[in-house]
Amino acid sequence: MDQYLQAALEEARKGYEEGGIPIGSVLVHQGNIIGRGHNKRVQQGSVVLHGEMDALENAGRLPASVYRECVLYTTLSPCPMCSGTILLYGIPKVVIGENRTFKGEEDLLRSRGVAVEVVDDADCAALMQRFIAEKPEVWNEDIGV
Amino acid sequence: MDQYLQAALEEARKGYEEGGIPIGSVLVHQGNIIGRGHNKRVQQGSVVLHGEMDALENAGRLPASVYRECVLYTTLSPCPMCSGTILLYGIPKVVIGENRTFKGEEDLLRSRGVAVEVVDDADCAALMQRFIAEKPEVWNEDIGV
Repeated sequence: MDQYLQAALEEARKGYEEGGIPIGSVLVHQGNIIGRGHNKRVQQGSVVLHGEMDALENAGRLPASVYRECVLYTTLSPCPMCSGTILLYGIPKVVIGENRTFKGEEDLLRSRGVAVEVVDDADCAALMQRFIAEKPEVWNEDIGV
Repeated sequence: MDQYLQAALEEARKGYEEGGIPIGSVLVHQGNIIGRGHNKRVQQGSVVLHGEMDALENAGRLPASVYRECVLYTTLSPCPMCSGTILLYGIPKVVIGENRTFKGEEDLLRSRGVAVEVVDDADCAALMQRFIAEKPEVWNEDIGV
């Protein structure tokens, strides 16, 4: 597996070990990971810190010029919130671990010129499938269902 | 002015007094304000806590059924991130103070069935105009420019 998607998956596993929703993300700028994060709904009672949002938050305040040279790696297809955030900051490329367990706003991203790559990684999917089977109500809450 | 938009404007003013970006929001459920917030970029170094996001975060974890009965009031037209969040949680209505200083994803929201009302309030606009004139670089950072 790509080292960056691997790092995102490590974040997802960290979330799972904490009892949280196992979705992880890393923000990569010119080959360097500048932000890592994972979903914090359970751990912090957060409704905004999805994995992608947590990675961006941990990267801190950045000028627009940096975001425009970034790739966002995420273990799961980005929901409307995270997709909107990708559009807000003009992140040009997103690499998605899997979209079997949830299909986010990939079409909207592509329609706005974002490059979207779906790896379809079995480990990313297996971790989410396990969590959804164990705690379906927490997962549904996370996606507004 | 509508009491809820007034409450959102009070949040925006609080943000301005703290040296932050003056955008405020309240989440209203069946006539009751259940979350208040304002942009925290400057105060907390946050890249995700726009006014709308902060109001949702402060409302805490809610079941989907509650969001579906909510109205989100915001002093400024919601950016792609905040609009995506409105879609994620299925909030059916958004009341916007003004969209003179920034026009967000109102068309996307409407295309997905969200009721969008623009009040065009002069006080909301004046506060943003003042901030943008004073700190244009902070404002540009907030909208990824």
